Amino acid sequence: MSLYYFYLSYFLLKSSNFMILFLNSYHVSLCVSAATPTEEMNGAGNLMDFLDEPFPDVSTYEDFHTIDWLREKSRDTDRHRKITSKSKESLWELIKSLLDAWSGWVVMLLIGLLSGTLAGVIDLAVDWMTDLKEGVCLSAFWYSHEQCCWTSNETTFDDRDKCPQWQKWAELMTGHAEGAGAYVLNYFLYILWALLFSFLAVSLVRVFAPYACGSGIPEIKTILSGFIIRGYLGKWTLLIKTVTLVLAVSSGLSLGKEGPLVHVACCCGNLFCSLFSKYSKNEGKRREVLSAAAAAGVSVAFGAPIGGVLFSLEEVSYYFPLKTLWRSFFAALVAAFTLRSINPFGNSRLVLFYVEYHTPWYMAELVPFILLGVFGGLWGTLFIRANIAWCRRRKTTQLGKYPVLEVIAVTGITALLAYPNPYTRRSTSELISELFNDCGALESSQLCDYVNNPNMSRPVDDIPDRPAGPGVYNALWQLTLALIFKIVITIFTFGMKIPSGLFIPSMAVGAIAGRIVGIAVEQMAYHHHDWIIFKNWCRPGADCVTPGLYAMVGAAACLGGVTRMTVSLVVIMFELTGGLEYIVPLMAAAVTSKWVADAFGKEGIYESHILLNGYPYLDVRDEFTHRTLATDVMRPRRNDPPLAVLTQDSTTVEDVETLIKDTDYNGFPVVVSRESERLIGFVQRRDLTLAIKNARQKQDGVVSSSVVYFTEDAPQLPASNPQPLKLRRILNLSPFTVTDHTPMETVVDIFRKLGLRQCLVTRSGRLLGIITKKDVLRHMAQMMNQDPESIMFN
Amino acid sequence: MSLYYFYLSYFLLKSSNFMILFLNSYHVSLCVSAATPTEEMNGAGNLMDFLDEPFPDVSTYEDFHTIDWLREKSRDTDRHRKITSKSKESLWELIKSLLDAWSGWVVMLLIGLLSGTLAGVIDLAVDWMTDLKEGVCLSAFWYSHEQCCWTSNETTFDDRDKCPQWQKWAELMTGHAEGAGAYVLNYFLYILWALLFSFLAVSLVRVFAPYACGSGIPEIKTILSGFIIRGYLGKWTLLIKTVTLVLAVSSGLSLGKEGPLVHVACCCGNLFCSLFSKYSKNEGKRREVLSAAAAAGVSVAFGAPIGGVLFSLEEVSYYFPLKTLWRSFFAALVAAFTLRSINPFGNSRLVLFYVEYHTPWYMAELVPFILLGVFGGLWGTLFIRANIAWCRRRKTTQLGKYPVLEVIAVTGITALLAYPNPYTRRSTSELISELFNDCGALESSQLCDYVNNPNMSRPVDDIPDRPAGPGVYNALWQLTLALIFKIVITIFTFGMKIPSGLFIPSMAVGAIAGRIVGIAVEQMAYHHHDWIIFKNWCRPGADCVTPGLYAMVGAAACLGGVTRMTVSLVVIMFELTGGLEYIVPLMAAAVTSKWVADAFGKEGIYESHILLNGYPYLDVRDEFTHRTLATDVMRPRRNDPPLAVLTQDSTTVEDVETLIKDTDYNGFPVVVSRESERLIGFVQRRDLTLAIKNARQKQDGVVSSSVVYFTEDAPQLPASNPQPLKLRRILNLSPFTVTDHTPMETVVDIFRKLGLRQCLVTRSGRLLGIITKKDVLRHMAQMMNQDPESIMFN
Repeated sequence: MSLYYFYLSYFLLKSSNFMILFLNSYHVSLCVSAATPTEEMNGAGNLMDFLDEPFPDVSTYEDFHTIDWLREKSRDTDRHRKITSKSKESLWELIKSLLDAWSGWVVMLLIGLLSGTLAGVIDLAVDWMTDLKEGVCLSAFWYSHEQCCWTSNETTFDDRDKCPQWQKWAELMTGHAEGAGAYVLNYFLYILWALLFSFLAVSLVRVFAPYACGSGIPEIKTILSGFIIRGYLGKWTLLIKTVTLVLAVSSGLSLGKEGPLVHVACCCGNLFCSLFSKYSKNEGKRREVLSAAAAAGVSVAFGAPIGGVLFSLEEVSYYFPLKTLWRSFFAALVAAFTLRSINPFGNSRLVLFYVEYHTPWYMAELVPFILLGVFGGLWGTLFIRANIAWCRRRKTTQLGKYPVLEVIAVTGITALLAYPNPYTRRSTSELISELFNDCGALESSQLCDYVNNPNMSRPVDDIPDRPAGPGVYNALWQLTLALIFKIVITIFTFGMKIPSGLFIPSMAVGAIAGRIVGIAVEQMAYHHHDWIIFKNWCRPGADCVTPGLYAMVGAAACLGGVTRMTVSLVVIMFELTGGLEYIVPLMAAAVTSKWVADAFGKEGIYESHILLNGYPYLDVRDEFTHRTLATDVMRPRRNDPPLAVLTQDSTTVEDVETLIKDTDYNGFPVVVSRESERLIGFVQRRDLTLAIKNARQKQDGVVSSSVVYFTEDAPQLPASNPQPLKLRRILNLSPFTVTDHTPMETVVDIFRKLGLRQCLVTRSGRLLGIITKKDVLRHMAQMMNQDPESIMFN
Repeated sequence: MSLYYFYLSYFLLKSSNFMILFLNSYHVSLCVSAATPTEEMNGAGNLMDFLDEPFPDVSTYEDFHTIDWLREKSRDTDRHRKITSKSKESLWELIKSLLDAWSGWVVMLLIGLLSGTLAGVIDLAVDWMTDLKEGVCLSAFWYSHEQCCWTSNETTFDDRDKCPQWQKWAELMTGHAEGAGAYVLNYFLYILWALLFSFLAVSLVRVFAPYACGSGIPEIKTILSGFIIRGYLGKWTLLIKTVTLVLAVSSGLSLGKEGPLVHVACCCGNLFCSLFSKYSKNEGKRREVLSAAAAAGVSVAFGAPIGGVLFSLEEVSYYFPLKTLWRSFFAALVAAFTLRSINPFGNSRLVLFYVEYHTPWYMAELVPFILLGVFGGLWGTLFIRANIAWCRRRKTTQLGKYPVLEVIAVTGITALLAYPNPYTRRSTSELISELFNDCGALESSQLCDYVNNPNMSRPVDDIPDRPAGPGVYNALWQLTLALIFKIVITIFTFGMKIPSGLFIPSMAVGAIAGRIVGIAVEQMAYHHHDWIIFKNWCRPGADCVTPGLYAMVGAAACLGGVTRMTVSLVVIMFELTGGLEYIVPLMAAAVTSKWVADAFGKEGIYESHILLNGYPYLDVRDEFTHRTLATDVMRPRRNDPPLAVLTQDSTTVEDVETLIKDTDYNGFPVVVSRESERLIGFVQRRDLTLAIKNARQKQDGVVSSSVVYFTEDAPQLPASNPQPLKLRRILNLSPFTVTDHTPMETVVDIFRKLGLRQCLVTRSGRLLGIITKKDVLRHMAQMMNQDPESIMFN
């Protein structure tokens, strides 16, 4: 009964929290969802047995703080050691230790199953709701257009799109399928549905899970690098992100589901972590699971397990030991096969865009491929700059106060402009799929409207180049308009308060550009096959140019320009085609695009958003090449008050309490004496507070004037003196130190590779100052002429 | 003219060196080839301008020493900074800086081209020489059997193997192709050729490049982890390894070319490093190139570029930044496509074993797949234990003194036993290829001798399961014998003084076992399709079991058991089949095999050989879980003489010289005074020696009683005192320190991640001792109950 009350009040608290958030969170870009009860308990837990524990476990991390990787690792080793030594005691302990060893694989299996299932459900729901904007299936309203006509037996392959069960809204309401009236009604209802979906999405995000917005990848990168954002991967976020993702994609906005799927998979990972104390109590181990979950996310987004693992390795993860590589691969495979058994695309294909080309590519085609790479790089630069500028404007001006209105407005404009053009009206995935496709003989699409040679008697899948028909020219115009539309609208869409990925829109821009170039080259080769550049490889009647391949290369180039992915990009694309044949064009375009984009700025879109939001992210790829020394970065600076230190045997409890009250440092160095300044250890603020609080409550004789001893043995004091407080147990005797002459590049390297929170600076054995991760980030930002104040407190 | 003499004398010196090596190197398993002239010059170079250089570059590393990764990195940053600042001065400097930035890609391109070409040449030569053991092509003696019959127009597909141009030796010499006499003569010549090839191989290795023996992967792992073995990747090794690899593989010994190809590719990488000072002068940057070269090596060995990159990442490399990942991929692709354009297999396929299966696998088949995984794990354990025991015996007994005789004996036995069995007579790659293949309708192999249903009218590539014919039963017997033979002989072959890889023999063992299991399951399913386990998925007349897939799964399991590869193994296998379909069986077998093998011992074959040879290799995967502290490991131990230190302002030149003479430490800590023991820096032995030698020669007034100053300013001394020697310039002011209470697991982590050579131990600012990489390795070996004395000097 009391449990029931507990949950009820918890829920009320939670809802009221959210309402307050909804009302108050205009100015902050990051809003904390309330911590889950487990987390709260952990935080305040085992206070009682603190003094009995030889290795106090009390200091978990606070929100928006960074973790200490070395400490987490050694805690896990301790745990492992304990289990191993216990396992020899009894059979039950042995079984427990085996279960513990297997728990990693179990978590991976669960993540794979759940994220695969969720991806399948999302795919099915998006399919249905996207079609719902245009019409409904009369035989079963929950069928999408394709499913509806698939089940009707009377249709042939050709008019698959027109089956009597599927009715557009105008036809259903007025009985007229054609005519201006029907068009206007359909148009109107299309916009209305889009507005409804996007309004629902943004409202759900605002009310229930503010963290569910955006792609999530910048935040996941930051979390994996050791930052704590409570609730970002919580159950609420998982639920709301899944639902709103469906709504956002179905509303026809220019956004994709790939990035959010990574977020969803990571939420699954976090969820299953809580089942095993091995992962839930250790932030370092938890991040190993999350890295694997990110791989599973990409794996289901594209049906590319190997690409997913490489994406996690290259783009998302920070600490990626080989063990995680293997487990990530397992999770990615399970996820991919779960998705395939759900079979949302109805073709039992694993991949999102399955393509099969029948002709090889020729050396001379590298020129247009490289041009597409240049285009991709330019698009990447343009997109990142414009999007960041727009997001900054949103953050700093009135605009940020009306996120719901913004989403509604952008959806309205998108729907209004998208409907008239057949290439933007449909879902972006379908568009990309069509653009990638090679024109077979049976293809009925406008893009494949070539003038056929009546005498043609070749096999179906090896059609020679043909002159373009009127449909192709028509399509070219529409594609050009779609390209401009997509370029502009995507800039304004990414970053709104709804789940939004940008893989798909980027790929769409590239695929459109690529297809246009491809058709141009094809027609040029057909009409001018005597030109010197075509002479060698394009005889009349041969099938020498595949416009679909150009679309694919363009998509890779644009995606590369925006995200700066390299190997994972090529591998994902390779998994889509399944042939090593086309790796070289993809690679050429990806390399060019990265080089061109890098020339204008090193940061990809995710790093730019990390910078914009001021997350304390220490990028592994940034080379720090300045000549500063540790002494230039450490605090206290010249003219600052001296460093707040404790002495090992002359500070009183009151002194410590004053220090804790007056400062907000995370911890304090302990020295032999203020004169010698010789460092003996470092004590965490949190441990200190708890220890003193505990001692005052439970230990007789500890008063304000008690002396705090960090030495091994407190001296025998006369009885008149108050009882001393021995705190060596909470003292970290191996704090990390560097000398003041250490070059900052080495310090940065140490922070990066060892995942430190802080590092003490000494000169010939004397303590001089302290460098925190925040100081390092500030200094790096300063050196790169960025605004150092934007970095979040650490 | 003088240059000519220089090279002549150099060559004579070199040859005499080699002769001495040939005579003397019986007892050592590692013999140094003479350093190349460039290396010698580097070592002793810029002695003259030493005192003018603000950052002395003098200390390169000596042979069998480990490098200091942090130092190499900061040297590269310095270099980069210099170039960047210079590039603003003039156009020429700008161009130079651009060339410098591009040199990495150029090196990759060159590595790809050369290693691809070498792999192609090796493949062609092996093909030809393998066939030469049996016969010769009359139309052109340099044609292999296949090429010979390919060019003859009169043969049809069926009797491709029997064309008049190709004659067996007996036929050529006696005119009789059949009969006992011809068989004996062919048998005899087969053995003779094998002996000739292997004798040539072992002699060349012994005389010209002792480092060319073995697979090379254990040594490359060690080198990549920061060890220096001069000449291991030299030009001679490259040349001799390429030639002897062809001889060794052609001799029919149970060895493969995959491991040695990695060594060859790394030699190419090292060769091209010397073209650019960026790589030749920086051991850290050089290792980045070598990691990429290793990827290119695997890429050409299997035709699997992605697998190659993952192999380099997972198995070989130590420090693998993302930049290297991308470049490795590029090198691997270039290598793969160079190999394909050479087209040694004549089928324009990229991969070594191309397979295409037509039927899916069924859930129930996971049981035999997992059994194959268990077999693979057991085989891996057996092989590693037996091989290491045999190699240890070779090292410690008389056996090691006669490497030529050993090779001859093993070759003789191999040839003698291999010839009568058709499955061992041919080359192992061909055997694996046949075992992997699905039986098509046109297959003439004995393994495909099934009883056909005369009424069968199915398409060619979807043949239902059929009862096995006498050929299959015959083949089963021969395969069983081949399996036993391969298992035994491979144990004795790997580790001899010739180039020898074990990918192919391991895969062969697995493929044979797998095929046998596959045929057994197939026949069981055919004859007992009413059994409950077959009922659900194997109706009569269906094609439900693919024995070739079992062979492939078995090969993966055995390779995994021996090498403990995981992701790279599955990806290489996936690239062979090209279908995601079969990843699950491969993964199941690989996981099982790794688990089973790990249960008997954590080390794979490469790690075992590293341990056997005592290389100072700090494995990233070993978890150090013991509870020791830095104070337990540091030197001086209790009862040892005190630590050899220098003081900052009271040591004389003579003292320093005595210290250098009396000790062999790599460097000395510098303290404020012996009383305070406060650390101020660390000075390298090599720098110290050079500086004093130089000062004595060039600086007036520096005598034995001169005081050496490491302080910023030497005090003004009375004129009577000798001139002081100021050495602050060579003092490393940021030595790495830990406190004596630091847990060893943290110390190990720091050594691993930062690539340190040594680390100083302090307690409350006082210097207590020093921990070197060797101490860490010794301690780890001690803790794991291994012989700590086996670790090489460091």
